[in-house]
Amino acid sequence: MKLNGIIAYPITPFKADGQEVDFDALSISLNALLENQCDAIAPLGSAGEGAYLSWQEWQQVAQKSIEVVNHRVPVILGISELTTAMAIQKAKKAEELGADVIMVIPVSYWKLTDQEVYEYYQQIAASTKLPIMVYNNPATSGIDMSPELIVKMFQNIDNICMVKDSTGDIQRMHKFHELSNGQLPFYNGCNPLALEAFCAGASGWCTVAPNLLGNLPSQLYQAVQDADLVQAKALFYRQLPLLRFVVQYGLPKTVKAGLNELGFAVGKPRSPVQEASATERQQLKALMKLAIAN
Amino acid sequence: MKLNGIIAYPITPFKADGQEVDFDALSISLNALLENQCDAIAPLGSAGEGAYLSWQEWQQVAQKSIEVVNHRVPVILGISELTTAMAIQKAKKAEELGADVIMVIPVSYWKLTDQEVYEYYQQIAASTKLPIMVYNNPATSGIDMSPELIVKMFQNIDNICMVKDSTGDIQRMHKFHELSNGQLPFYNGCNPLALEAFCAGASGWCTVAPNLLGNLPSQLYQAVQDADLVQAKALFYRQLPLLRFVVQYGLPKTVKAGLNELGFAVGKPRSPVQEASATERQQLKALMKLAIAN
Amino acid sequence: MKLNGIIAYPITPFKADGQEVDFDALSISLNALLENQCDAIAPLGSAGEGAYLSWQEWQQVAQKSIEVVNHRVPVILGISELTTAMAIQKAKKAEELGADVIMVIPVSYWKLTDQEVYEYYQQIAASTKLPIMVYNNPATSGIDMSPELIVKMFQNIDNICMVKDSTGDIQRMHKFHELSNGQLPFYNGCNPLALEAFCAGASGWCTVAPNLLGNLPSQLYQAVQDADLVQAKALFYRQLPLLRFVVQYGLPKTVKAGLNELGFAVGKPRSPVQEASATERQQLKALMKLAIAN
Amino acid sequence: MKLNGIIAYPITPFKADGQEVDFDALSISLNALLENQCDAIAPLGSAGEGAYLSWQEWQQVAQKSIEVVNHRVPVILGISELTTAMAIQKAKKAEELGADVIMVIPVSYWKLTDQEVYEYYQQIAASTKLPIMVYNNPATSGIDMSPELIVKMFQNIDNICMVKDSTGDIQRMHKFHELSNGQLPFYNGCNPLALEAFCAGASGWCTVAPNLLGNLPSQLYQAVQDADLVQAKALFYRQLPLLRFVVQYGLPKTVKAGLNELGFAVGKPRSPVQEASATERQQLKALMKLAIAN
Repeated sequence: MKLNGIIAYPITPFKADGQEVDFDALSISLNALLENQCDAIAPLGSAGEGAYLSWQEWQQVAQKSIEVVNHRVPVILGISELTTAMAIQKAKKAEELGADVIMVIPVSYWKLTDQEVYEYYQQIAASTKLPIMVYNNPATSGIDMSPELIVKMFQNIDNICMVKDSTGDIQRMHKFHELSNGQLPFYNGCNPLALEAFCAGASGWCTVAPNLLGNLPSQLYQAVQDADLVQAKALFYRQLPLLRFVVQYGLPKTVKAGLNELGFAVGKPRSPVQEASATERQQLKALMKLAIAN
Repeated sequence: MKLNGIIAYPITPFKADGQEVDFDALSISLNALLENQCDAIAPLGSAGEGAYLSWQEWQQVAQKSIEVVNHRVPVILGISELTTAMAIQKAKKAEELGADVIMVIPVSYWKLTDQEVYEYYQQIAASTKLPIMVYNNPATSGIDMSPELIVKMFQNIDNICMVKDSTGDIQRMHKFHELSNGQLPFYNGCNPLALEAFCAGASGWCTVAPNLLGNLPSQLYQAVQDADLVQAKALFYRQLPLLRFVVQYGLPKTVKAGLNELGFAVGKPRSPVQEASATERQQLKALMKLAIAN
Repeated sequence: MKLNGIIAYPITPFKADGQEVDFDALSISLNALLENQCDAIAPLGSAGEGAYLSWQEWQQVAQKSIEVVNHRVPVILGISELTTAMAIQKAKKAEELGADVIMVIPVSYWKLTDQEVYEYYQQIAASTKLPIMVYNNPATSGIDMSPELIVKMFQNIDNICMVKDSTGDIQRMHKFHELSNGQLPFYNGCNPLALEAFCAGASGWCTVAPNLLGNLPSQLYQAVQDADLVQAKALFYRQLPLLRFVVQYGLPKTVKAGLNELGFAVGKPRSPVQEASATERQQLKALMKLAIAN
Repeated sequence: MKLNGIIAYPITPFKADGQEVDFDALSISLNALLENQCDAIAPLGSAGEGAYLSWQEWQQVAQKSIEVVNHRVPVILGISELTTAMAIQKAKKAEELGADVIMVIPVSYWKLTDQEVYEYYQQIAASTKLPIMVYNNPATSGIDMSPELIVKMFQNIDNICMVKDSTGDIQRMHKFHELSNGQLPFYNGCNPLALEAFCAGASGWCTVAPNLLGNLPSQLYQAVQDADLVQAKALFYRQLPLLRFVVQYGLPKTVKAGLNELGFAVGKPRSPVQEASATERQQLKALMKLAIAN
């Protein structure tokens, strides 16, 4: 399993009442991502409101996503659970449903020690044959895993084989590279860092951007692959205002607003998260237009 | 409903396997708290691992706690939920079960705007007749509510009538006092701030300390009530090393270790949180002895 | 040397051109502080713009202040220097001029290790017989000294015998008390923490407040001494809005504006610090009126 | 004046007693930098302990540096002063001595408002014809200037024409680019960000690295210019451990230790900053060997 390039994060569409998952809309939005040269699809991540779904909904979204993607690219399922038991339950289900990778983030109420995080991953890893992408995003999960801890898990736990870091701290990527002698593939989850993470050696960019910007993210990846820094820089700065906007206002809110704007009818986020305001929708529309038109 | 003094937080005991709730041990530990002059009991809070329980467990612990306390003091049930829908479900259940107050903390995955927090509380408040204690603890919940927002909710939403703040920032208590003209009762949830919060006008101290220190917390409250600052200071500094320890290493882990040490057999926290290490248990034992012996 | 109560910080008045020190105005403002029951006077501190004065000006202000105070209360001279050599030069001059105490804060450009801070104080202490008050205020100096380091210096360096902490972190005061077994006298330099620091055992309050609030600070100290918590709380909350304001907008700027308002003609701060705006002066005036009138 | 590439920062050598400037050693170390393909020389910066020198020493170091460089590359003189008056005095002297650029950082004791920073720069700019590089480094200066403020000064004050940012926050560089429509040349002052800053469009890298790593920094710049990302990445990761080390332990301390190791005899930093410990010197030596040998 060698993942490279653009790993696209779909949202989870809800019907008008804001509660029921809309599987038809899910199907449509997944296909749209695939048309935009994405190299992998990662349902049920932060953008997919995975943490807000019931156990039943999580299974349904996972199953439907795997079915729609239908092996065209790898499917990476997101798992964000407070208890080890529930995370293991999802890992087993992911394998059963035919996912290619699971992306696991340890959500906290009580802060975890390094030892607790280690055993959390170890127990999940022992429960499945799937490759695991460690996902670090303290802003949402409340837990910040050091590069040292992550590389240690990579070196000692068999099916831990990738890391996604969303802190936006480029120095962490340097550390992944150095501490693992370049062996640990790392993926950037901070949108406004897309250009520099690739330059520092990131294997991929985990992003919602293809939902709203078509194949511009893929073009950026290609420009870096071609060592065309002038073009890469131009492509990055073109997308940057929108990338910054979606991070600032929250992914489910802004990506759903943008998709609705594009005619996809994906509903709004689950309460207490609210839909984008009229002003935010206007700003978003302008930023999308700007990026596409440039 | 006018709460004053020591609001005690029980843990949720698990059986040896670390999974099943031990209702007998729960009953015993609740009675022990009541013997130590606590003025209210708050099950299913942070210390009670409320966020780690299944919906069924939450109901069972709530029911059992209310039954054991049996109106000897008010019962405050903790609600920490990611979705508004689930928080409302618990609020209704709390009322149905006969709780006196609900303490509500808005847990985040995606950060919430002030407006989202406001509507979250408003919808929960509309679903129940119970008085609501707003609970602010960004270290566990990931959401930091400003004094301005909290006082605004207090002034505009009928059954929001108290606030518990665990940030340890005494300036927030000053703000509660000033912004509400002394009308909003505030409770301190930061153990190492117990003395100063009372001096600043806190109505109560929300604490696990009575689990491990008997009626010392109650004595501290009395000394402040009696304006005996010398005695209050002595009582506070006597408890402080232990208070700091339980905050530093996490409440479920340390309080369960301490109760086990005292012979209560309450099990260990739910995974991924682990039990206290042998070293931590030794330190804890020494600190408990020191406080009691002094 | 046992200092207790209110340690008042005068400003350094400048003439209309904003450059030359106005010694007559200095004399008048020092006498006004003494009339307000201050227990010590601390010229050339943060409020006194000590860091902004030339070496000659520093000496002149020191000499004049000692002369005006004339042993009515102890004089504590502030020293904030980047180099050890210059700090020693000032320490010697302070002793020669007849100061009672020096308050020393290690200013940083390059961050200092604990060992560097230790030797900085040790060398200064070796150069003078004066008692030294260690002053911790990372917000202005860029160096944050831990309670552990400060207590170690107190225990090992003869004439280090007091600490002023302006971080506003009450837990540090707890640490001073515990680590030194109550032997290290600590002083609070965070105005909005005045009440609680006294309750936690602070020997004194280092403050500009008597410049603008007459003997209200002294009354607060007395109320705590008399264990009249109700009165202490009332006196504190009465002063709090103004205390918060002067901290937020900066001491030289606001205290000079307030003194000018009271008719003292003390000029404005040295550039690049500017005088208070018209709006700020209006707010300040209202807050002073409110505190005095209450 | 169009600066590109490697802007080298010399240290200020002291004689054995740690006090007197060693002008011969200064001359030797400046020539060594020039032999390593540096594109500009910036004496009296952070690394040059400019803030720790007397007014007389500052002038002497400035004069000697300009004389030694002798127009081979531009000379950028560092000015870091607490008062506007002293900063102006240095700006005028820099012009008189024949400097090409001044790099100005507003040092704080009292925090400055945006308006105060603006007028600080405006007044300095009005006092000289020299181009000004705005220098933002809150870790040493205590003042953090936003990209918005810096771009506003660039657009409104004639001789403000470049910015050096040492925060290590790549997003600020994005902002400089966007807010000025690519017109404001920005320079990276955070060594461990060297690769990515160039990729994001930085005009240069302000660094002490050529003191210890010969022309490796220059090679990195060339590789980026040649769009050879593979080579640039290799060159960067080769230097990174040393770059991180000098930032972590402080520039004057580590660079002087490294130069002494290389046989330059530049003395130690001015007290209270101490020389590197034996352990630190061993680590440094190993890191230098590693980078050179690779």
